[in-house]
Amino acid sequence: MHYGDFDTTIPILGKAKIPSPIQGGEKGAFSRSFVNDSERIIIDVKLNDLITLAEKGKDFPSFELAGPRKKIYFDPSKLRCALVTCGGLCPGLNDIIRAIVLELFYGYGVKNILGFKYGLQGFIPKYGHDVIELQPENVGSILEMGGSILGSSRGPQSIDEIVDTLERMNVGILFMIGGDGTLMAATKIADAVTAMGLKISVIGIPKTIDNDIYLVSRSFGFETAVDVATKSIQGAHNEAEAYPNGIGLIKLMGRHSGFIAATAALAQQDVNFVLIPEVDFDLEGPKGLFSALAERLKLRSHAVIVVAEGAGQKYFEGQDDDRDESGNIRLKDIGVFLKNKIGSYFMSKDMEVSIKYIDPSYTIRSLPANANDRVFCSFLGRDAVHAGMAGKTKLLVGRWNNHFILLPMSASAGKRKQVNPKGKLWLSVLGATGQGSLKND
Amino acid sequence: MHYGDFDTTIPILGKAKIPSPIQGGEKGAFSRSFVNDSERIIIDVKLNDLITLAEKGKDFPSFELAGPRKKIYFDPSKLRCALVTCGGLCPGLNDIIRAIVLELFYGYGVKNILGFKYGLQGFIPKYGHDVIELQPENVGSILEMGGSILGSSRGPQSIDEIVDTLERMNVGILFMIGGDGTLMAATKIADAVTAMGLKISVIGIPKTIDNDIYLVSRSFGFETAVDVATKSIQGAHNEAEAYPNGIGLIKLMGRHSGFIAATAALAQQDVNFVLIPEVDFDLEGPKGLFSALAERLKLRSHAVIVVAEGAGQKYFEGQDDDRDESGNIRLKDIGVFLKNKIGSYFMSKDMEVSIKYIDPSYTIRSLPANANDRVFCSFLGRDAVHAGMAGKTKLLVGRWNNHFILLPMSASAGKRKQVNPKGKLWLSVLGATGQGSLKND
Amino acid sequence: MHYGDFDTTIPILGKAKIPSPIQGGEKGAFSRSFVNDSERIIIDVKLNDLITLAEKGKDFPSFELAGPRKKIYFDPSKLRCALVTCGGLCPGLNDIIRAIVLELFYGYGVKNILGFKYGLQGFIPKYGHDVIELQPENVGSILEMGGSILGSSRGPQSIDEIVDTLERMNVGILFMIGGDGTLMAATKIADAVTAMGLKISVIGIPKTIDNDIYLVSRSFGFETAVDVATKSIQGAHNEAEAYPNGIGLIKLMGRHSGFIAATAALAQQDVNFVLIPEVDFDLEGPKGLFSALAERLKLRSHAVIVVAEGAGQKYFEGQDDDRDESGNIRLKDIGVFLKNKIGSYFMSKDMEVSIKYIDPSYTIRSLPANANDRVFCSFLGRDAVHAGMAGKTKLLVGRWNNHFILLPMSASAGKRKQVNPKGKLWLSVLGATGQGSLKND
Amino acid sequence: MHYGDFDTTIPILGKAKIPSPIQGGEKGAFSRSFVNDSERIIIDVKLNDLITLAEKGKDFPSFELAGPRKKIYFDPSKLRCALVTCGGLCPGLNDIIRAIVLELFYGYGVKNILGFKYGLQGFIPKYGHDVIELQPENVGSILEMGGSILGSSRGPQSIDEIVDTLERMNVGILFMIGGDGTLMAATKIADAVTAMGLKISVIGIPKTIDNDIYLVSRSFGFETAVDVATKSIQGAHNEAEAYPNGIGLIKLMGRHSGFIAATAALAQQDVNFVLIPEVDFDLEGPKGLFSALAERLKLRSHAVIVVAEGAGQKYFEGQDDDRDESGNIRLKDIGVFLKNKIGSYFMSKDMEVSIKYIDPSYTIRSLPANANDRVFCSFLGRDAVHAGMAGKTKLLVGRWNNHFILLPMSASAGKRKQVNPKGKLWLSVLGATGQGSLKND
Repeated sequence: MHYGDFDTTIPILGKAKIPSPIQGGEKGAFSRSFVNDSERIIIDVKLNDLITLAEKGKDFPSFELAGPRKKIYFDPSKLRCALVTCGGLCPGLNDIIRAIVLELFYGYGVKNILGFKYGLQGFIPKYGHDVIELQPENVGSILEMGGSILGSSRGPQSIDEIVDTLERMNVGILFMIGGDGTLMAATKIADAVTAMGLKISVIGIPKTIDNDIYLVSRSFGFETAVDVATKSIQGAHNEAEAYPNGIGLIKLMGRHSGFIAATAALAQQDVNFVLIPEVDFDLEGPKGLFSALAERLKLRSHAVIVVAEGAGQKYFEGQDDDRDESGNIRLKDIGVFLKNKIGSYFMSKDMEVSIKYIDPSYTIRSLPANANDRVFCSFLGRDAVHAGMAGKTKLLVGRWNNHFILLPMSASAGKRKQVNPKGKLWLSVLGATGQGSLKND
Repeated sequence: MHYGDFDTTIPILGKAKIPSPIQGGEKGAFSRSFVNDSERIIIDVKLNDLITLAEKGKDFPSFELAGPRKKIYFDPSKLRCALVTCGGLCPGLNDIIRAIVLELFYGYGVKNILGFKYGLQGFIPKYGHDVIELQPENVGSILEMGGSILGSSRGPQSIDEIVDTLERMNVGILFMIGGDGTLMAATKIADAVTAMGLKISVIGIPKTIDNDIYLVSRSFGFETAVDVATKSIQGAHNEAEAYPNGIGLIKLMGRHSGFIAATAALAQQDVNFVLIPEVDFDLEGPKGLFSALAERLKLRSHAVIVVAEGAGQKYFEGQDDDRDESGNIRLKDIGVFLKNKIGSYFMSKDMEVSIKYIDPSYTIRSLPANANDRVFCSFLGRDAVHAGMAGKTKLLVGRWNNHFILLPMSASAGKRKQVNPKGKLWLSVLGATGQGSLKND
Repeated sequence: MHYGDFDTTIPILGKAKIPSPIQGGEKGAFSRSFVNDSERIIIDVKLNDLITLAEKGKDFPSFELAGPRKKIYFDPSKLRCALVTCGGLCPGLNDIIRAIVLELFYGYGVKNILGFKYGLQGFIPKYGHDVIELQPENVGSILEMGGSILGSSRGPQSIDEIVDTLERMNVGILFMIGGDGTLMAATKIADAVTAMGLKISVIGIPKTIDNDIYLVSRSFGFETAVDVATKSIQGAHNEAEAYPNGIGLIKLMGRHSGFIAATAALAQQDVNFVLIPEVDFDLEGPKGLFSALAERLKLRSHAVIVVAEGAGQKYFEGQDDDRDESGNIRLKDIGVFLKNKIGSYFMSKDMEVSIKYIDPSYTIRSLPANANDRVFCSFLGRDAVHAGMAGKTKLLVGRWNNHFILLPMSASAGKRKQVNPKGKLWLSVLGATGQGSLKND
Repeated sequence: MHYGDFDTTIPILGKAKIPSPIQGGEKGAFSRSFVNDSERIIIDVKLNDLITLAEKGKDFPSFELAGPRKKIYFDPSKLRCALVTCGGLCPGLNDIIRAIVLELFYGYGVKNILGFKYGLQGFIPKYGHDVIELQPENVGSILEMGGSILGSSRGPQSIDEIVDTLERMNVGILFMIGGDGTLMAATKIADAVTAMGLKISVIGIPKTIDNDIYLVSRSFGFETAVDVATKSIQGAHNEAEAYPNGIGLIKLMGRHSGFIAATAALAQQDVNFVLIPEVDFDLEGPKGLFSALAERLKLRSHAVIVVAEGAGQKYFEGQDDDRDESGNIRLKDIGVFLKNKIGSYFMSKDMEVSIKYIDPSYTIRSLPANANDRVFCSFLGRDAVHAGMAGKTKLLVGRWNNHFILLPMSASAGKRKQVNPKGKLWLSVLGATGQGSLKND
């Protein structure tokens, strides 16, 4: 993987001149370790790649380190900030909201914080959704709750109307927590803001329970999702083992990438087949899933299959392109499809099987975050605030090589992280499941 | 409810003459409190009912108390016992297996214990399933596991072949853990055994996660099921609250009775509508679910619905009678049906809603039992052994008025416990949800 | 156990004349199943006992059934109610608070509900604690939280000052949630109220995580406590197994009764010795714990001991009577004592052991209730309201023979439920642990 | 932090010449992505540090990448391997055992795998502990169990006797899972092996629930520990809030480093004071803990304190040096010490407080690993096998910059990772708690 093909410079609204109020620290006892704009974390850590770059006289690609800056751009006493959460639920949304509000309020003294309800709809007057004043009191005890206290929605909204609202309501920093589509909208909002000469910082906190954001090594909620997904696998395994020719089939999240499916299968170790979008597979034929499954049943009389929601989409090709409100292609349900196809296959072979299909997606994504995701969200939220207060914009807060970093939206947009079929994760899955290629030659 | 209409006498194989080896207790230190056959627990505890009976000179209906008897019927050194688990999974199956094996082995010195695999199929030679020797070692650490180490299956098998197997393998006591259908089969097996003059005790441990066995006040696994079902409701609530006009729809177990749905709704208290088999409801019309739901959304913009799997079956009437292998009518899926119908309704009203449908059934039933169910299973299993060793047969071990009791199979067979629409449980649900009648006049 | 020696008549403040506003039910659709004062549940369910009573011409002892009455005593529009939680924390406190507030508010239309903070201290002016207005909004989402939103405290306060406060603040019904000491105080308050001719109903909801309240078959929080206690036993077992001569020692709650210790030991089944207040044991001597423990270690090289906090108090006799603020004798810590004594014993025998001591009490009692305790608390709270609104007083809400019942405070006060050393629970513990008598002759 | 001061070369037993049997992958379908010995991961990722090194013409310090090699050193058909787990329990031990056994067995075809019981004692004949044959069957379902199926022990044993046993039993690879002391012993064993000209690979898998191993960015079990520790904090918070001047005091693991205390405090966000070994604090004086605590109680009337077990050891100075069997200084119990001191302080101020002390350590360390730790352990175990099979020795398997790497034992030994008092983690703790310096000038 070569990382040099994008600009890693973080845009700014203007020069940060105001001394940070967090200088001096709490109660005067500690001086904050401020981070310099020039502190950067290299992207590629393979020694040979670096040597090659050095030999060619090229720079090492790197990201700007996140953290509090000595000078800030916005005057906290006059600043109004806004938060919005978009797209599907994900464990940790409330943790990020909480961290942003507390850092703004206590860290910088910003008292004026708005929460827009129901995603981008919240900025569009015709929906008439309330805007919430966010204060420490109303975010104090939201960690135990799943979901998002701001709510969410899917689908695009008029960028003009959104920018209008931001201008009219005098918002200085907009924190947008969302996935692909949201970050695309964020880019457009930031562009429109620039075009209009407004001084509004747009900060994105990438949200994807699937862990598939490009250049972001870990996304919040993912670990919680894996932890809980294993419980479903365990259930499916118990069901499969309990009946003659029992088959447990679990659909897990993963529209374009199989990280949750692969990782949960590794964690639970009871899985015999993992199907992910990145690796093609056949159903029929000597090497196809059906044959492999029949063989497994013959050997052990039960089997557990984990399928990522985006796997096997080729089986729906030619069918109408169905799009949801966000413009995402509406995936045909591979779980239900497989359940039916497997049933038919064994019926045609006159072999009695007992299939149990489990789809835990909504239960997982609506959970509160586990402790590690909470800590992670807390850092993401606070670093988002530091970046915004320093007048930086059009960026994502992410994590790379164990450091929190700032990433220009442009670098990540439109790309996607995926499971590498030759990489350690997938090879370990192959080792743990014993599944071979499910592809006929 | 009048309880006088059935015989509560427990059939016996013959006179118990052998002194119980558990007399003297562990290490000679404690003498067991043996239970006398004449100790009985009255069924109806309402004072006025008893007074009425007394005035009429009638006996008080009562159950025989379970527990160890001073004299036993079988010679432990020559006895072979058999266990089987049938039907759907339910938290606690392994606990009961463990308790039976340990009590037989350590309590009575019975070393010869067989586990038949995959339910009734295990007795039928053509399936070729293994028979397992059950010893303390292989049941010692099965409590943490869900499912059943013996496996299960659905559907009837030839009673003659089962009895043949029992006779051929010289089984003295058969412990059958299963639901409705299983207990029906148990009755037939016991009848055939009697007809053939065999001395085989058939002991049933009623299993129904739905808690709907007649004359059994609590069935194992139910509390675990409710505990976990609340987590799904919480998830559905988070999803519902997060989106404009969000609707969380959870289908819970309950083929003929709504105990899980009603109890879980009471526990979680986030539910707005509970639909159960015992209470009819309409979808259309001024009082129907759709109107009530629309009204709720107008008021609070989100709603949570819990539906028991057996609710609203009238909507499938006229459709083909579809039966599963056990001969149970295959229920049309009310969850999926409702999800689609609600979607269509609001589309026809041009009102955008966001429906999230959750069906956690397999995840729940395959779980290990919680601590209270474990203790409960431990008593059930041990009392089943005591009854069998004493030569009693054709009985169920149950719980009534806080005592473990023995119930003739004939008293419970073919009847079912249901939620009383005028009773405390359902009225509390109505109070907690605020739902009114969903029935047009 | 003979139950005839107490009066089971519930005192009343006066005749209930006002039609209940909950008549007609929610939205007019359902008529409530009102309960009649004459509906009673018999106490003893053993058939032989009842026959004996009948032969002697005696009445069957019985409790009044709880539930909503057709006529109430207080005018909801003028009524002010008060709640207080006292003593140690227990899972379910918030559930009961919530149920009382919601039933008062929505069921009867009582809008004026006060929460006194920090137990009985809340009534005493000198402490200056706030009084909270309780409304549906501030109890809506407290179920997920452990502890008590009202707080608590230990120790007696002046009855006169409490009654003064009640009179001054015009309280009509006082709901007191607490243990032994609290119910004693409740009785005195009720007596003082009567003496002064005031019309204040005093309703007790018995709280004891130990499950040791006389005439109350199950107390809220107990099942949650057992469920979580098993996790500690599991941890202790893992620690014990992992080291040569490993000993896991867990102290569980149970000041005067060993219900939690015994039940958790049955649930987890990894325990070798259970020590409870009801059963005497020796440490030294041929049958004492030390010898038995040494033998167990020789056989299996690890052992798990569960000790109830009130066990073995004889080892502290002669030491000063130390009382806490509530006047309870401050128990010497049997857990720490045993840990040290066991250590010394094996050191004196020159046998290396590895003792791990676990005391999970605070973690357990501060947890939120599990689903079954939640449902239980919801019924307790609502039935407490029904009783108070009907003008009944000096009573406890309890559960008996699977019915919620009303119990005069006088019947339960000063007595205690204990584990019967000849009963089913303890005998099962002996069976499961294999422990014999630990008492030298 | 400068990383250049150690050798990162991995010692080898000899040239690896045998083609890896895992070449070709499962069922011939996949070719393994073998890792080359020359693939390395740089240690320091700060761009400026690298530029400085480059300018000085120095190499970039780096670690060898872990993973399967194309050629191996040992002949699988003749190889015998040995596993041992040492020191305190930690979530994930069984996962690592399982991963090693499965990779050896299925990946390389090594059938001869021994498990030594009870840590280093297992190698010493006089203890007479059994040696276990490890096969896939006996590690298949150990993931749900906490602890270690091999058991453990503390303290040093004779290196000579250990090496004797290894030679006598013909062990080729020794996998040692343990902490500081164990890795020290491992180094000595490897040195003795070399001195004797034996060909035994010694592979260490660093175990420390405290996460304080130098050059290892994450140690297994840590995330599980944090997750569960937060539950104790929540309990302590509930207890503290419930009583007037309630103080919840939780002692968490962390002998020399406060990672668990700091991270759990960040996750739970209910904590007011965190005390760790890395940051000095006073009890008395105007800025000491007592004053700060008194102030907090005045403001909010409750407080939560988290203390790492190794914090405040200065208060025990001058007291005898007490060492446990491993030679570690036996820490005086700072939790009990603080509980008593805080009690005395407020008694002397005549201020009534309610202190609840919670020490969940044994419960946490004996738990099974959560899903993420399981996956992590699975990789650690498999990479340990790959390294050993390739004839590498005297190394640790670790993780650095999101890659699994091999680290010479010499580089890490005798050093320790600690919380940086000027770093992001601790500053976030200061921000979240609001605690200032607790040190008088």
